[in-house]
Amino acid sequence: MLRLRRSCQHFRQPFIKFLSTAVTPPPPPHLPLSHPTYIVWGSNTSVGKSLVSAGLASSFLLSDSPSQFLYLKPIQTGFPSDSDSRFVFQKISSLFQRRKAHLSLLASDHVLKASLPVLNSVSGCGIVNGNELAMCDLGRYEDQLLVGQESGIGSRLICKTMYAWKEAVSPHLAAERESGPVDDAVVLQSLQSCLTTGLEASGESDDAKTKAMCLVETAGGVASPGPSGSLQCDLYRPFRLPCLLVGDGQLGGISGTISAYETLKLRGYDVAAIIFADNGLANEVPLSSHLRNRVPVLVLPPIPADITDDLMDWFDSSRNVFDSLKEILLSAHSKKINNLREMPKKAMNVFWWPFTQHKLVADEAVTVIDSRCGENFTVFKDQGSEFMTQQFDACASWWTQGPDAALQTELASDMGYATARFGHVMFPENVYEPALECAELLLDGVGKGWASRVYFSDNGSTAIEIALKMAFRKFSFDHGIHDAQECNAEAPRPELMVLALNGSYHGDTLGAMEAQAPSCYTGFLQQPWYSGRGVFLDPPTVYMHGGKWYLSLPVGLQPENMMPESLFFCSRNEVFDEKRDSSDLAGIYSAYLSQQLSDSSKFNSLLGALIMEPVIQGAGGMHMVDPLFQRVLVKECKRQKIPVIFDEVFTGFWRLGCETAAELLHCAPDIACFAKLMTGGIIPLSATLASNSVFESFIGDSKLEALLHGHSYSAHALGCTAAAKSIKWFKNPQTNQNINSEGKSLRELWDENLVHLISSHPAVNRVVALGTLFALELKAYGPDAGYASQYSRSLLLKLREDGIYMRPLGNVIYLMCGPCTKPDICSQLLIKLRTRLDEFISESAESLKSCHS
Amino acid sequence: MLRLRRSCQHFRQPFIKFLSTAVTPPPPPHLPLSHPTYIVWGSNTSVGKSLVSAGLASSFLLSDSPSQFLYLKPIQTGFPSDSDSRFVFQKISSLFQRRKAHLSLLASDHVLKASLPVLNSVSGCGIVNGNELAMCDLGRYEDQLLVGQESGIGSRLICKTMYAWKEAVSPHLAAERESGPVDDAVVLQSLQSCLTTGLEASGESDDAKTKAMCLVETAGGVASPGPSGSLQCDLYRPFRLPCLLVGDGQLGGISGTISAYETLKLRGYDVAAIIFADNGLANEVPLSSHLRNRVPVLVLPPIPADITDDLMDWFDSSRNVFDSLKEILLSAHSKKINNLREMPKKAMNVFWWPFTQHKLVADEAVTVIDSRCGENFTVFKDQGSEFMTQQFDACASWWTQGPDAALQTELASDMGYATARFGHVMFPENVYEPALECAELLLDGVGKGWASRVYFSDNGSTAIEIALKMAFRKFSFDHGIHDAQECNAEAPRPELMVLALNGSYHGDTLGAMEAQAPSCYTGFLQQPWYSGRGVFLDPPTVYMHGGKWYLSLPVGLQPENMMPESLFFCSRNEVFDEKRDSSDLAGIYSAYLSQQLSDSSKFNSLLGALIMEPVIQGAGGMHMVDPLFQRVLVKECKRQKIPVIFDEVFTGFWRLGCETAAELLHCAPDIACFAKLMTGGIIPLSATLASNSVFESFIGDSKLEALLHGHSYSAHALGCTAAAKSIKWFKNPQTNQNINSEGKSLRELWDENLVHLISSHPAVNRVVALGTLFALELKAYGPDAGYASQYSRSLLLKLREDGIYMRPLGNVIYLMCGPCTKPDICSQLLIKLRTRLDEFISESAESLKSCHS
Repeated sequence: MLRLRRSCQHFRQPFIKFLSTAVTPPPPPHLPLSHPTYIVWGSNTSVGKSLVSAGLASSFLLSDSPSQFLYLKPIQTGFPSDSDSRFVFQKISSLFQRRKAHLSLLASDHVLKASLPVLNSVSGCGIVNGNELAMCDLGRYEDQLLVGQESGIGSRLICKTMYAWKEAVSPHLAAERESGPVDDAVVLQSLQSCLTTGLEASGESDDAKTKAMCLVETAGGVASPGPSGSLQCDLYRPFRLPCLLVGDGQLGGISGTISAYETLKLRGYDVAAIIFADNGLANEVPLSSHLRNRVPVLVLPPIPADITDDLMDWFDSSRNVFDSLKEILLSAHSKKINNLREMPKKAMNVFWWPFTQHKLVADEAVTVIDSRCGENFTVFKDQGSEFMTQQFDACASWWTQGPDAALQTELASDMGYATARFGHVMFPENVYEPALECAELLLDGVGKGWASRVYFSDNGSTAIEIALKMAFRKFSFDHGIHDAQECNAEAPRPELMVLALNGSYHGDTLGAMEAQAPSCYTGFLQQPWYSGRGVFLDPPTVYMHGGKWYLSLPVGLQPENMMPESLFFCSRNEVFDEKRDSSDLAGIYSAYLSQQLSDSSKFNSLLGALIMEPVIQGAGGMHMVDPLFQRVLVKECKRQKIPVIFDEVFTGFWRLGCETAAELLHCAPDIACFAKLMTGGIIPLSATLASNSVFESFIGDSKLEALLHGHSYSAHALGCTAAAKSIKWFKNPQTNQNINSEGKSLRELWDENLVHLISSHPAVNRVVALGTLFALELKAYGPDAGYASQYSRSLLLKLREDGIYMRPLGNVIYLMCGPCTKPDICSQLLIKLRTRLDEFISESAESLKSCHS
Repeated sequence: MLRLRRSCQHFRQPFIKFLSTAVTPPPPPHLPLSHPTYIVWGSNTSVGKSLVSAGLASSFLLSDSPSQFLYLKPIQTGFPSDSDSRFVFQKISSLFQRRKAHLSLLASDHVLKASLPVLNSVSGCGIVNGNELAMCDLGRYEDQLLVGQESGIGSRLICKTMYAWKEAVSPHLAAERESGPVDDAVVLQSLQSCLTTGLEASGESDDAKTKAMCLVETAGGVASPGPSGSLQCDLYRPFRLPCLLVGDGQLGGISGTISAYETLKLRGYDVAAIIFADNGLANEVPLSSHLRNRVPVLVLPPIPADITDDLMDWFDSSRNVFDSLKEILLSAHSKKINNLREMPKKAMNVFWWPFTQHKLVADEAVTVIDSRCGENFTVFKDQGSEFMTQQFDACASWWTQGPDAALQTELASDMGYATARFGHVMFPENVYEPALECAELLLDGVGKGWASRVYFSDNGSTAIEIALKMAFRKFSFDHGIHDAQECNAEAPRPELMVLALNGSYHGDTLGAMEAQAPSCYTGFLQQPWYSGRGVFLDPPTVYMHGGKWYLSLPVGLQPENMMPESLFFCSRNEVFDEKRDSSDLAGIYSAYLSQQLSDSSKFNSLLGALIMEPVIQGAGGMHMVDPLFQRVLVKECKRQKIPVIFDEVFTGFWRLGCETAAELLHCAPDIACFAKLMTGGIIPLSATLASNSVFESFIGDSKLEALLHGHSYSAHALGCTAAAKSIKWFKNPQTNQNINSEGKSLRELWDENLVHLISSHPAVNRVVALGTLFALELKAYGPDAGYASQYSRSLLLKLREDGIYMRPLGNVIYLMCGPCTKPDICSQLLIKLRTRLDEFISESAESLKSCHS
């Protein structure tokens, strides 16, 4: 027999707390996966999202086994006359009684925060005055225990409205008028707290927990603005909850449902099912056909038009559909979890990862990346219980990554558009919009003032191979070799070499490797064809230690009479100051380089090109080369008509704080290579830029004189589209708040004090902080130092627990952010790093002590 | 004074013509650009598309200068009670009178075709009986001349409904019930005819034509199905008309409008403006903000709710908005045309095209590609007047392209999704869904039976460089070199070379080039570092001539006692028959190869790998190598433990009719490289597959033993997503109708008779037709032959006029389609080619005659 034990409604005295206006970064979403959580979207407003939520809850709760159901309504307008959480609460209560449920049910409805007008309109609160707009704690709570036919453990329904506004308009308008906007991060933080504590707080046994489900119901349509003005599909994206889309069965509903579905996919969501109320138009037929049956489409009976109908009959007639829906959602959830769980093992069986000794990788060390949002990975973890957590991608996905969440969304739309408009279009002798726009932006940006032509290819290595071919042709032209070769096929081939710096890295294809000094990448067992076709100079480097910038001169460049003050700098700005051109050191560099270049004639070969990474040698260990040295070197080569190649694959596009590192050097090359960040870091594309005189050396009457190098996807439309968008985005102060007022450089991203502190840390040898890069070399000796070292492993594993994903270059580790990353996020990274360095050094001391004892 | 001169309504006796059910390919859209043509979309049904059309027409026609306005409604349901074209016709007539227009106006409304129920319900037609469902000619025509205040040339309004159905439901339902589906191609053909003849047929002076505009109004929402069931946004896509989106000003309208906008962008459309009727919700504010002001958003006054309102006051109060809209659309059109016109010159100034002698390219030879749809380019032409035309991309955008229009749309959605979900995610030690799915599909498809690992990189060249590194390590392992090198850094480095075939091509990076024989790509002026590290064998080739397949043996492989019947084949199947293994020729090949391999020891170097393109040497000139020879070669290398690399960059993924060319050879490699078609041809990605024993040779205790080669975008999410979709799409008979019943090969795409005929053509030396490839070598001598030859130029220019875009390999030309291209399209290509060959030969004969005379 049913008995209503308690039905109370009480209001806590509202406490008006004004939300901080400071933008705090969104918390790392740590989402439990022990039960399914779905987000309910509508293809339009008033398509019946709450009906579906209630129907699903009934199917879940009014069964024969105890279960829990958490229903969350983060954003409610039109409150209190409209309250979807109360609707669900009430319908379930009514259905409980109607269906004579077996198990008892504890049901509650809770409204957490509301606007002032809501507070004032809710009876029992009294009139609250507040001049400032804000959201207030409402704490409206209602619950009831419904006793079922059987005694014993019952079920539980928890309904929560997180934020309520009075006016029945779009949340962005209601918030604007009643409370001021609510920041996305604040909404997400509240949601996360409801998601993680909602079901656990109920104190049920472990057994019952396994039969739990959670629904998050959105407001309005998929792209309706939330209370900050962000579209809800963007607002909730960091959680990327699997979706249930409530479609539209009316005339026009096919279109609306498909478009809403596409909007969700275009945000990276997965839609588990589509459900809608029938209207006699069989909308499910074209919908299923369009979706190629990949998404189940369910049809509910028509919703009674009579608004006084209590819908009980409708729920009864919909029961089978909701039961099916429940099964679909449960099985999609378990399938997803199983897939995620099996991924590491499968990956270990089929992948051959680059730069990876597979023997050293354990299953549990494989990171399962569910998705990324802006600079963050969402990572699946299986540590007893499964959950999703967030890690800052401090590798910037291997030095390519740039977009914040907003640019990622823009790029998603652009990639869809470019594929639909162009797919791929072959390049030679053709022109199409994205290729032209991209080339013009490159010449007006990174090539400004010197470059006149853009040669597209696929990645840094191919860009370098092309650059070398360009340089050698230009050199041959300028030094009379071209004519000799052209007139006489039997003429002896002179041996051309490059001038390059030790520690440099230009890519992994043979031509790119030949231009770099011998290293662990170039041994016989790696590349038997490598010979090292260069004269490789040791460069002077600059680094920070103990808060000071030092100059480190290589052997052979340490004149006896140099003043000690030449060996350090008061600031990083001084390092890049052009005034150093008139210093004694400039003269010393110049003399040294003249000497080296004339010495190199002894090699019986010609130096056909200078190739170098301006300012920072990346893969070589994040070394900062003295910019004065590089500038003097460029001048010397230009004087001798040796074409100059800048390898800006790593350094280009704001990586070092300027659009090109050439700006930091204050000199221009003849040829420059760009890749990685050029597309915003989402798709491979590279460009070799060249001056007009380089281009001219390939002009002739025959095709055979043209540069006969190319790749099928040269200037592919997707890459050029992404590059054009990203190049503009990064340099526009409207979209990138890090751009300084002159538009020439990024503001300082790494907090100066924290950088100084870390550079003084006992575990740290040297630090380089420039632009988006913060690198440090751990003090290490013997096998702990160098590329193959595993020395930093324990440190990096700890940092992953802190939500920072790093990958070492041996004992050199780095944090790399995007050009748009907020400085306070960078500061958080540095703070966490510093804390873990403290632990690291004390552990090392421990282990050292135990070794000695 | 206004005077109604004529108002008549007459019906031609309807002639019931049953539409052909055979699918005819869509006509090449040849769209005039002399005046703007926009397509009007609604974010939902009943948002006021026709009101906007009428308002725009009024702004255009009721001005002080003569003008023409063409309004087209391709699909009308609910006819005759609903007729948007009559609505526009009537409202303009009423507004003409109300506003006391100066210039006279000839206005007409024409309904072309209708379903039988429409015919039967229209008075004056009598009852027509018809058992078969079909569309009938209705020919309902109405016009009137409205005389304005001034005499002289007037304006003209032409309204047309192309297809009308009676029931007021979605067109797919109405068609299903009343006429049967109408094929998309048929709708497009009618639309093209209306678009091209509509305004010209009016016979106005040239002057008046410059003030013309056309609107095409869709039915329902952007993704409402058309009369074939295809979504309208897909149906109209081949024309890619610029769009005007009528949004929704109601509650929920922000979401609906944004989603509809995204659906259009996801089809590659450009939206010139968004307009909607106000509802007091200021929906334009979040819309403009979301669109970052890139698309103008216009707001109309609220539409009167009273359905008896004649809307005259509303049109008056909307006048300014429609005037602004008109200006926006006109200026967007001229901006677009100007951009298109300037593109060739701009391209010539900034691009450096690969494989292109810029001196030989004239501005007018540059192809301006506006877009692609499936296998076709849409190309902008400026030949006196400007227009858009269609060209079949017979280069398959340089051998990469595979999608039909349906797959392109799917890929667009997938690329948006993958960008939104992942952007890019670094690969080493990580796993994410698309990379895993792609790797599993590769191992279960092209690598089935032999490969166990997938190494991802960016393009064919890098895949080859990786393959060579793998092979050399494996060889070193198997031949005792590995241990010697590992134990003793000072051990002499043996020289490793490849065994390869003359005429082969493996890419343009140095390592890939070193593995191919000297050619025009490898001279000193192209790549001074090239030395050719291989033993290069001349392979026997197979070709068709005069309808027969011939074997061509190289010098050194022509034994005296060979029977002449060994030198030709009855069919192509015989060429690939495994029974040939027991032929005399197999023995001859085997003896020859043993001899060559033992001879090669004289080079003082070791053959560390065999590398070859199975069956077809692509860039080398589309030569078919005798598969028996390649099979014998593979066996011999396996016997000698020389690792075998198949370069399937060109041949893989159905290019030659099977998923891999290895299937045609009936033997497996140790390592194979894939790229190009792998992603469906829209984005660069490559994979090097390896057997387990190759993988094992990199397993060790140190990272330094791992394969230290990688590119930042290894296994990038977009590429892997595209590859996974395309691999599945191409091999699934549901999505690719060319897949034969066993799922192992494509049906014959090139009509046998046509191929025979062309192979017998006097201009043709040889033909190869296999899978998606049809290649022919033109008879040419001296400088007309070879890679740098311009011999085929005039032929290919003519073919472009026929709508076929080809690019030569010197005197070798080819047609390449996608794995899903319909055979009848291939036949059309062959027919056009044959016709032009006839012209070509007679012109050659002419010029030869004039030379001799």
